Amino acid sequence: MSYQAPVKDMMFNLRHLAGLDAVAQMPGFEDFGDETAQAVLEECARLMQDVVAPLNHEGDKQPSYLKDGKVTTTTGFPAAFKAYAEGGWQGLQHPVEFGGQGAPKVIAAACNEMLQAANMSFALCPLLTDGAVEALLTAGSPEQQQLYIPKLLDGSWTGTMNLTEPQAGSDLALVRTRAEPQGDGTYKLFGTKIFITYGEHDLAENIIHFVLARVVGAPEGVKGISLFIVPKVLVNADGSLGARNDVHCVSLEHKMGIKASPTAVLQYGDHGGAIGTLVGQENRGLEYMFVMMNAARYGVGLQGIAIADRAYQKAVAYARDRVQSRPVDGSVAGSASIIHHPDVRRMLMTMRALTEGCRAMAATAAAAFDAAHHHPDPETRQQNQAFYEFMVPLVKGYSTEMSLEVTSLGVQVHGGMGFIEETGAAQYYRDAKILTIYEGTTAIQANDLVGRKTLRDGGAMARALAQQIASTEATLLAGSAAAQAVGQRLRAAREALLAVVDFFTAQGKANPNAVYAGSVPYLMLAGNLVAGWQLGRALLAAESERASDPAFMDAKCATARFYAEHILPRTAALCDAIVGGAESAVALPLDAF
Amino acid sequence: MSYQAPVKDMMFNLRHLAGLDAVAQMPGFEDFGDETAQAVLEECARLMQDVVAPLNHEGDKQPSYLKDGKVTTTTGFPAAFKAYAEGGWQGLQHPVEFGGQGAPKVIAAACNEMLQAANMSFALCPLLTDGAVEALLTAGSPEQQQLYIPKLLDGSWTGTMNLTEPQAGSDLALVRTRAEPQGDGTYKLFGTKIFITYGEHDLAENIIHFVLARVVGAPEGVKGISLFIVPKVLVNADGSLGARNDVHCVSLEHKMGIKASPTAVLQYGDHGGAIGTLVGQENRGLEYMFVMMNAARYGVGLQGIAIADRAYQKAVAYARDRVQSRPVDGSVAGSASIIHHPDVRRMLMTMRALTEGCRAMAATAAAAFDAAHHHPDPETRQQNQAFYEFMVPLVKGYSTEMSLEVTSLGVQVHGGMGFIEETGAAQYYRDAKILTIYEGTTAIQANDLVGRKTLRDGGAMARALAQQIASTEATLLAGSAAAQAVGQRLRAAREALLAVVDFFTAQGKANPNAVYAGSVPYLMLAGNLVAGWQLGRALLAAESERASDPAFMDAKCATARFYAEHILPRTAALCDAIVGGAESAVALPLDAF
Repeated sequence: MSYQAPVKDMMFNLRHLAGLDAVAQMPGFEDFGDETAQAVLEECARLMQDVVAPLNHEGDKQPSYLKDGKVTTTTGFPAAFKAYAEGGWQGLQHPVEFGGQGAPKVIAAACNEMLQAANMSFALCPLLTDGAVEALLTAGSPEQQQLYIPKLLDGSWTGTMNLTEPQAGSDLALVRTRAEPQGDGTYKLFGTKIFITYGEHDLAENIIHFVLARVVGAPEGVKGISLFIVPKVLVNADGSLGARNDVHCVSLEHKMGIKASPTAVLQYGDHGGAIGTLVGQENRGLEYMFVMMNAARYGVGLQGIAIADRAYQKAVAYARDRVQSRPVDGSVAGSASIIHHPDVRRMLMTMRALTEGCRAMAATAAAAFDAAHHHPDPETRQQNQAFYEFMVPLVKGYSTEMSLEVTSLGVQVHGGMGFIEETGAAQYYRDAKILTIYEGTTAIQANDLVGRKTLRDGGAMARALAQQIASTEATLLAGSAAAQAVGQRLRAAREALLAVVDFFTAQGKANPNAVYAGSVPYLMLAGNLVAGWQLGRALLAAESERASDPAFMDAKCATARFYAEHILPRTAALCDAIVGGAESAVALPLDAF
Repeated sequence: MSYQAPVKDMMFNLRHLAGLDAVAQMPGFEDFGDETAQAVLEECARLMQDVVAPLNHEGDKQPSYLKDGKVTTTTGFPAAFKAYAEGGWQGLQHPVEFGGQGAPKVIAAACNEMLQAANMSFALCPLLTDGAVEALLTAGSPEQQQLYIPKLLDGSWTGTMNLTEPQAGSDLALVRTRAEPQGDGTYKLFGTKIFITYGEHDLAENIIHFVLARVVGAPEGVKGISLFIVPKVLVNADGSLGARNDVHCVSLEHKMGIKASPTAVLQYGDHGGAIGTLVGQENRGLEYMFVMMNAARYGVGLQGIAIADRAYQKAVAYARDRVQSRPVDGSVAGSASIIHHPDVRRMLMTMRALTEGCRAMAATAAAAFDAAHHHPDPETRQQNQAFYEFMVPLVKGYSTEMSLEVTSLGVQVHGGMGFIEETGAAQYYRDAKILTIYEGTTAIQANDLVGRKTLRDGGAMARALAQQIASTEATLLAGSAAAQAVGQRLRAAREALLAVVDFFTAQGKANPNAVYAGSVPYLMLAGNLVAGWQLGRALLAAESERASDPAFMDAKCATARFYAEHILPRTAALCDAIVGGAESAVALPLDAF
């Protein structure tokens, strides 16, 4: 089997880190207790392992292609999408009233990780559709919700996000696509959108584009951007399909990775105007798009975890199989499989620890999301919302940067074979590189973390987080030798975080360059720390639950300790660079580069 | 221009770090003083920039291909190879008596970096030919040297290294290719060799394969391996070409990167036996091959530096050009080119500092090589040889691992455009990944560093190196504010190195797993430190020579300080992981992965 879903690890996280029992007591989640979660995860694992995962390498070899304006996806993709939709997976996290399952995010996120691990290129289509549904739920009219959401959930239609234009990438203020009101409540759109994931494909009968554009006469900059629904095929009021709309795929990008996923250049209005309807109010498009983007950012973080796990599994299998050289400890008399060699074990442990650490972080963030939306107590909701918002850039930024390291190690474990495309390890290395870029580069995540999540409240949320970590630390330091080892590193890392927060809040607006030059290192520090913290919690749980599954629990403790001893110490170097190197980061004159 | 050779930086290194004046006083190098060096580097730069570099992206798009047993390289490669050979570049570092230029390695290495930066796939052919010449100079008979070296230097023929077989990668003890003595001084070879770079091509009229094989009846393991010359076309005693030999390219690998470089599977002896002649003595093949490999390992280190520089140059150009968002410091009123953004500057500085640091390290190592071979004093020769041997795994291991980070940042600076193949940044990311694998993976380099270079002499060479660093440190700490800032970080990093050396020598043979689990982190620590040390020396030189070129010297100081404040602190984390995490690295039972 090319992919084995980590159901056991996910259930461990749900039970011991994400508080599944507590989530299942929140209004609306009563049906999602332990047994249901286990059943859902196992059912999802089967579909992903058996149907979706085997198409991953195939998609790399035989990517989507454009001919006569039509995109044909990899052989097998349409059938897999049908199976995915018919299984109800697209609706898993969405409201029951529109045909969804209403599952909490803690469960949906686990399933989503499996989907992404099975086939990231394939999974991008559902991921974007989730974003479209979120936007409709946030800002769509009841009619729009009723017209579009059920079809998006049953797989009849899919959704896209249209932000980027050639001159407008990270900077959406530069968006130029034009929307002309027609007087009948509709608009005609004109412009070019690029990097549109699944902007054209053959998986569904319609594609619902969510498009940022400027209504004629709107203000300059981000305050003049509105959000529109522009279906590929127009939708009548009764939900039936009408005429083909004036939006056309004019080319697909030739990418380094996620090749099976068609990345379209879409041309709006070349033949008279693409008909669109406004979502919410005019000039509030960016606000709505951020709702989609925040959901998508968390999802991209899961992609990082997913591809890291896939790379890890492949590397372990190769390391067990490949026989080369005698172990240095003399444990095997002759040549042994390379998993016996200490450096291979170190690489595999690094891959494993980073993956499990980020998975634990994401599970905890998902629990906060659920509490923020479903907990009966308003104050608890608010606290969880603040926690979740702090976590989103970490889940997105740290998990994806981590996936670059893990997929690189995955190739490395394979030696020369890793560089040969047929082996498959190289695909993960190529695929992963998009993750630190799309849905906001790591720098954009870091700007968000520094500006909106740290400086705006004077470091309050960051310090509250450190307080929570200190509490876990205290328990660890009073525990077993392993717990103490983790607790010590956690303390040092937490102190590094606080030093940076103090530095940032002191520099504040006086020295923005110093603060923002440290933004990505700060994100890496905070992500590293939070993942390590969650593994610290995991160690405590694994020790107390050891009897239930000794081998699994011991492995969890070993992984947590490895993370603490090998990964957490990086935080000190990051702190030094941020605080001690703020000047040198921006000292070189621009013309000297 | 797609590549601008860093001649100024190279000359700075030659003058102030590698001691070119002293090198030019050694017997045999009298003609290679400052003026000659400058002229050679400028001449080389022109060829690389104008002829070789423009073919790099083309080679990625239109790789070498195999048809009817013949390999056709990328359009333009044969003409470029002709220009390279006719310019005398293949002979630059080789003896005058065989038609070479006899240049010192300090100069040859600079030219080699340019070649690799211009076009790594192309440059692999000369790199392998250099290795073949080295092997002949070390172990070839006078007749073999006379017969082969002049043709290898004038570009008529090229050389290859044939080590790997499907079951024998890092572990050459498993080599199975068989050599049967024919009684006339020749052997017939039978077997399959894989991953043979430029094993077949159309750049030259003949290919001289250097092949590891086992003479029938030879001992098992590495002690039964001999080295053979097996020409593609047999060579008569007068140097004219004879019959086609029984070695054939049966396929080319489909690789993630360096696509233009044909990586061949070679079949020996399928039609009666490939005729070969022994190099040196039977069963000493591995020893000779190590001579080739050590030259090649240094060369691969240069490839890391080269591709890093190319990626840096491309990223700088894009960052100057791409306009997106307002700078946080308000230095520009509207949207500005992204080089104004602090995180982009941090990324570019990281790329620049890593590249210049490794280049400085490589230049110093080359100077030691020259002194080891040409210095009149035997003791000085011996000291330099020990220093050089310690440097080889650092130049190879650290520079190539660094190139992964730099090429990844290179893509990142480009944002979404970086992921599009037409942009070209992705090619560097894909190409670089082979560098940590071939000519010995980073783990193999680290084993060499730990076993042969550190434990064998009880840490003496490592401690002697630390002593040299301490001396630079003292000068820095007595200097300017910038010098002190560098000196402080250097001291911490040197102490981290010594802590690891103490740990390794104390654990010694009692706990080999703990030592070897820390081997790659130790290599990364030592490489980081040595590169930082050389930049510390560079800062001192730049300060004292400031008047000669203020802008360049100031930039050097800024880069050195950035390296010290942002890169050197990583050594502490590595030290912690090695010393504090030795147990956890190998704690997980093998069946728990």
